[in-house]
Amino acid sequence: MAPNSASRQSRSEVPEVVINRLPQYVRILNRLLDDGTQVVSSQQLGEKLQVTPAQIRKDLSYFGRFGKQGRGYSVRDLLDRLRQILGINSPWNVAVVGVGRLGRAILSYPGFNPDGFRLVAAFDLSSKVVGETVGGLVVQNMDELDQVVGREKISIAIVAVPVEYTQNVVDQLVACGVRAILNYAPITPQVREGIRIRNIDPVLSLQSMTYYINDE
Amino acid sequence: MAPNSASRQSRSEVPEVVINRLPQYVRILNRLLDDGTQVVSSQQLGEKLQVTPAQIRKDLSYFGRFGKQGRGYSVRDLLDRLRQILGINSPWNVAVVGVGRLGRAILSYPGFNPDGFRLVAAFDLSSKVVGETVGGLVVQNMDELDQVVGREKISIAIVAVPVEYTQNVVDQLVACGVRAILNYAPITPQVREGIRIRNIDPVLSLQSMTYYINDE
Repeated sequence: MAPNSASRQSRSEVPEVVINRLPQYVRILNRLLDDGTQVVSSQQLGEKLQVTPAQIRKDLSYFGRFGKQGRGYSVRDLLDRLRQILGINSPWNVAVVGVGRLGRAILSYPGFNPDGFRLVAAFDLSSKVVGETVGGLVVQNMDELDQVVGREKISIAIVAVPVEYTQNVVDQLVACGVRAILNYAPITPQVREGIRIRNIDPVLSLQSMTYYINDE
Repeated sequence: MAPNSASRQSRSEVPEVVINRLPQYVRILNRLLDDGTQVVSSQQLGEKLQVTPAQIRKDLSYFGRFGKQGRGYSVRDLLDRLRQILGINSPWNVAVVGVGRLGRAILSYPGFNPDGFRLVAAFDLSSKVVGETVGGLVVQNMDELDQVVGREKISIAIVAVPVEYTQNVVDQLVACGVRAILNYAPITPQVREGIRIRNIDPVLSLQSMTYYINDE
């Protein structure tokens, strides 16, 4: 138990939709800090995030008291606290599995490192790709997975393999001790309790927008 | 107004989180249909989607009555109805803007077409890429955007340009009549009311998982 656990609700009591919004708060606060802004109101935060100020106050209330009534939030304090809550105040080592077209795009994406996600290993199922250097990493064989995950203290993996291999790769990653997986295949792999998985799927995103633009 | 509008709640009354779940229902139902399953219970659907049966029933209740008490849902009927609600019972034409590494991965992704999203045009800001054929499409100049969007009846665009160009590209798309945008850059572009935008951002996804694997 963290020493401050009494001052906030337990992990399972905070709705996942709230957790999913916190990274966006962090992003906005980072930008405000870069601009030299020291204090921000829930009104201003709400405008930037397209949610109501009441929603902002409710979201933050899960984690204790922030700011003073009528005086807004200290950008620096709120940012530090949210980064601590999210566990992104220190960096995470990440493996990428699948070095096809998408995997290459991921390995060359410059956005991970500044936000504390270090891509430290790349794996592929095909011997044609193994040994190639992509994004500064030598692509490794899946046989090396267990050893590399342990040695590099990798807790997170990004999976960009074809759909028919995805569940198997996810199982292997979990067996090696990986605890969070970001999956780019258009399926929902099964994982045991305690393992986090998020699926990035452009089709699901498109399908939830057509509802709004249909018949309008 | 659609003729059946009286039998369901208006668009704005259905929470967005519910809409965002419907495409996953569609996916599961498609798979059940492929497997020859004709009837499914909210219990079974809930197991596959990792939500409670009560949640399933509540989600569907926004759109009228489905199935009969204690007899489950007809897979075919529910699927047809959800596809109609989501507006994915007929295909949509989609443009891709940005043919870098990620854009190429998107253009070669086989998952759009079977789900009714036809990639019909590709654009890039760089004259080095314009004229190249990628995924069966000749990459076009942004000057052609207005004409092509009109001619091809494009309502949806996928934007995969560097972050510093994103807002400008989004503005151009909206000005040409595009009404839904899927953005891959790690920013939240501003759009006027009535335009839908979804941002795919791997870092936000990673940051919402670290909360759960931190300190455990």
